[in-house]
Amino acid sequence: MAAIRTILFVMFDQLRHDYLGCAGHPHLKTPHIDALAARGVRFARAYVQSPICGPSRMCFYTGRYVHSHGASWNGVPLRAGEPTLGDHLRAAGMGCWLIGKTHMRADAEGMARLGLAPDSVIGARVAECGFDVWERDDGMRPEGPDGCYDDRGAASYNDWLRGRGYASANPWHDFANAGRDAAGAMLSGWFMQNAQEPAAIAEKDSETPYITRRATDFLDQAGDRPVCVHVSYIKPHWPYIAPPPWHAMYGPEHVVAPLRHPRERQDPHPLHAAFMDGRVGRAFQDDALRARVIPAYMGLVSQCDAAVGRLVAHLQASGRAESTLIVVTSDHGDYLGDHWLGEKDLFHDPSVRIPLIVVDPRPEADATRGTVCEALVESLDLAATFVEVAGGEALPHVLEGRSLVPFLHGRAPERWRDCVFSEYDLALTPHAARLGLDPMRARLFMAFDGRWKFVHVEGMRPMLHDLATDPGEYVDLGASPEHGTVCERMAARLAEWALRPAQRITLSAGRAAAMRGASLRRGVTLGLKDGSELPAELTALYRGRPRPAPGGIDGGGGAP
Amino acid sequence: MAAIRTILFVMFDQLRHDYLGCAGHPHLKTPHIDALAARGVRFARAYVQSPICGPSRMCFYTGRYVHSHGASWNGVPLRAGEPTLGDHLRAAGMGCWLIGKTHMRADAEGMARLGLAPDSVIGARVAECGFDVWERDDGMRPEGPDGCYDDRGAASYNDWLRGRGYASANPWHDFANAGRDAAGAMLSGWFMQNAQEPAAIAEKDSETPYITRRATDFLDQAGDRPVCVHVSYIKPHWPYIAPPPWHAMYGPEHVVAPLRHPRERQDPHPLHAAFMDGRVGRAFQDDALRARVIPAYMGLVSQCDAAVGRLVAHLQASGRAESTLIVVTSDHGDYLGDHWLGEKDLFHDPSVRIPLIVVDPRPEADATRGTVCEALVESLDLAATFVEVAGGEALPHVLEGRSLVPFLHGRAPERWRDCVFSEYDLALTPHAARLGLDPMRARLFMAFDGRWKFVHVEGMRPMLHDLATDPGEYVDLGASPEHGTVCERMAARLAEWALRPAQRITLSAGRAAAMRGASLRRGVTLGLKDGSELPAELTALYRGRPRPAPGGIDGGGGAP
Repeated sequence: MAAIRTILFVMFDQLRHDYLGCAGHPHLKTPHIDALAARGVRFARAYVQSPICGPSRMCFYTGRYVHSHGASWNGVPLRAGEPTLGDHLRAAGMGCWLIGKTHMRADAEGMARLGLAPDSVIGARVAECGFDVWERDDGMRPEGPDGCYDDRGAASYNDWLRGRGYASANPWHDFANAGRDAAGAMLSGWFMQNAQEPAAIAEKDSETPYITRRATDFLDQAGDRPVCVHVSYIKPHWPYIAPPPWHAMYGPEHVVAPLRHPRERQDPHPLHAAFMDGRVGRAFQDDALRARVIPAYMGLVSQCDAAVGRLVAHLQASGRAESTLIVVTSDHGDYLGDHWLGEKDLFHDPSVRIPLIVVDPRPEADATRGTVCEALVESLDLAATFVEVAGGEALPHVLEGRSLVPFLHGRAPERWRDCVFSEYDLALTPHAARLGLDPMRARLFMAFDGRWKFVHVEGMRPMLHDLATDPGEYVDLGASPEHGTVCERMAARLAEWALRPAQRITLSAGRAAAMRGASLRRGVTLGLKDGSELPAELTALYRGRPRPAPGGIDGGGGAP
Repeated sequence: MAAIRTILFVMFDQLRHDYLGCAGHPHLKTPHIDALAARGVRFARAYVQSPICGPSRMCFYTGRYVHSHGASWNGVPLRAGEPTLGDHLRAAGMGCWLIGKTHMRADAEGMARLGLAPDSVIGARVAECGFDVWERDDGMRPEGPDGCYDDRGAASYNDWLRGRGYASANPWHDFANAGRDAAGAMLSGWFMQNAQEPAAIAEKDSETPYITRRATDFLDQAGDRPVCVHVSYIKPHWPYIAPPPWHAMYGPEHVVAPLRHPRERQDPHPLHAAFMDGRVGRAFQDDALRARVIPAYMGLVSQCDAAVGRLVAHLQASGRAESTLIVVTSDHGDYLGDHWLGEKDLFHDPSVRIPLIVVDPRPEADATRGTVCEALVESLDLAATFVEVAGGEALPHVLEGRSLVPFLHGRAPERWRDCVFSEYDLALTPHAARLGLDPMRARLFMAFDGRWKFVHVEGMRPMLHDLATDPGEYVDLGASPEHGTVCERMAARLAEWALRPAQRITLSAGRAAAMRGASLRRGVTLGLKDGSELPAELTALYRGRPRPAPGGIDGGGGAP
């Protein structure tokens, strides 16, 4: 099989699964991403392991569930020592580089406990969830009275903007994500009223083209070493304001109606109610605001599409195209008013389902080009896919996803999963306390088997949607007595998942097999009366003088 | 409160909860351990998190469940980076030293990935599950045609024995754990027929007094630095053969009847049947062999008791007694024929319940001296106890147990647990394949609420015992239709436990509370129409020129 020498792993932030031309959006123009879908496979039922940036990304970058790696919300450090995609790829001889966002927070305590210096090669990788960093840009530099949300956010981009003449302590905030009124005063991109304004920045100086150039700069110097390049954009994530001309590309006439139903407001699950009644939910229930915000969001999506076009053109111009696996995906969606919500705190499809397009240039993938795969796919399948593509050994005891290569090559994998799982750590939001939930145990878990989407809410009744009869997810059956058995069955699926041996990461299947029963032939002879039960070669050891002990540590202890 | 300067953490291996005088054994003499029970608190319902050495010990040494740390069977390495008791105690200014057995296997791959050199201080601690090592002696040096079970087992002890004139490549095997026949030929301690023979070694040269001397040697040079000393004996673990005079201290007349019932043989759970029909189970169903083996086991227990006497005498002679917390416990039990079984593969009390005696010398504990505590206690409570005693901060996000100090000081803790959990990784035994279970998912989980002992067997029906009506655990109700609801309730308890956020170890409760809602005041102002919703101090930031961004990384990300 021809070798893949480059993996171009493109991630957008908060890009909905259905806001692409190839996914059927009636007005949105995404010709470059659509072209990739025509050359590859579009996975139409791909789900993230958490509908919020940080934990979702840690699943992409470790190939493990949130429940396994523990970085359950934004700002929760990924524990030092958690194996990463970068570790696995480097072991297979492929580099793993970052250009853009990860939302990683380093585990400073754990690194200190292990003596890992942040400026050492290993320490830097542990601090950056396994990546070597060409540019880290989390793309978020808001300011408030308590300071910046992230002083490292957009730091290099801000320096570059100042060098380009955008005079401000924080041009990300004042120019890239703000407009201007007639008097020249700032119109913040944080305010939805301003979403239709052009950002006060030249298109080529905005963040998406900047990251694209940083990626092509990287590729220009990368030579032909095998490498996975994670190009990770902040957009179309809010602030919802686009640079010209993208700000004017779409208007209210291009805004699709919200996926919502009045019955969702009638006796809703208290958790759904809490988010519907929150500031963001209420704002996205205002159709006048949606009509201003969504065109800006769509403009940002089309700008992202143009970035993909530039990256693909660069691969072709540099001769990499035939040896590059291309992935385009997102870390989660955006309700945009669907289900009376904004943001992405729950598990309806607009939030937890993602776009996922994979282009495998090898001839083995010719038969599937332009096809749509309906299998239930999880974001953590990408890590296993990349390790296989890089030629590494399968690591089912560490990587909880499965390689998608069989789908790309038209081979149905054996016993593919029939349920996907996702989580949300409500404990780290003010809602837990407001809803009277144990603030340290308020976890949400989704189990979706392709028909039933079950959401376990610790301390409350579950939510349940039947996507066969209610594809819009408008009817919550979680309180329906007739669906008690379905809830029990799905709760059992979740329990089976929760009991998986996710932490037995030091034991490969091969080593486990070698351990079974090995101790008898290493002298652990339990339950024998007088040794006559044993073959002579063994009993001899217990008669007269034994032979000297051979060297070498044994293959894995048996007896307690 | 007077300070504890020393924690003497004594662990025996395979010592049953009921094989102590103070626990009611009718014939067994354990005066020194009984004296500790009279000076402290005996926890009568203490359970291990796995009834097998390695995983049980990793729970003692990390304060976390097997399902959390992943070292699920003997020989499964504890993942590099898992926080240990030693880490927590050193952070509190107390050393943590090992003399004896841990059954730890280092995670060589994980250490290499993190660049931890085995000969570095941190690397050595990671390789020894957090201990500084005075002497590592796992006390097991069997030999077979495939070599030694553990070439490091008893290595220093063997060297010492050779120096004492026990001429053999493996005197542990040939002398300390073997007898001699009239002709001087070796009678292996591995064979139950030989259990009544005296081991071919002087009492003072046998392994238990050797470890005791190594412990007192350590204490003699330890000075007055606060230290936790883990004195960890291999005995009364098999081989079942005792040195003189202990070999002759008990006879068949001192052997109690097995806790077994004919109905356990009628239509048993296939898993129970598999172990009953195994080599070890069959051997312990032979009352003639029990009558030879159990007196030897009892002799080894009395020798262990004498070791406790020497340790306590040394504490008193060295002036440490008044500042030393003493703990005597075991890593699991031994069926010894109960329930038609040997060894400790399942969850009946003889296997999963342990002796646990804690002596707190401080005046606050005077009121509880000589009392018995019936609370449901888990082995991982000791780590939390030791951290509190050392003056360290509580770490509920890392340590899954709870401090026992309130019980020692006569204060009932708030909302104490009402269920204990234990696990066994059948996947690493030949039974999984024989029983047709998925060899990588064949896990057993026990949930015991004080009355109902429920055992989840992945891929099979559960086991269930009602200890209120059947304290002997002879009646398995796991297939009883009338008990379906009890099984469902206990399965739900297990599921709730399995979903706990056990891996969120980088986030303290305080930090979590600080994160809730913090992002708004750091500029993440979502869901605002025009900013008029905000107080002036915030809107000002979005009008005209903003102030320069203040320095310092924020306290923990909020917005996605």
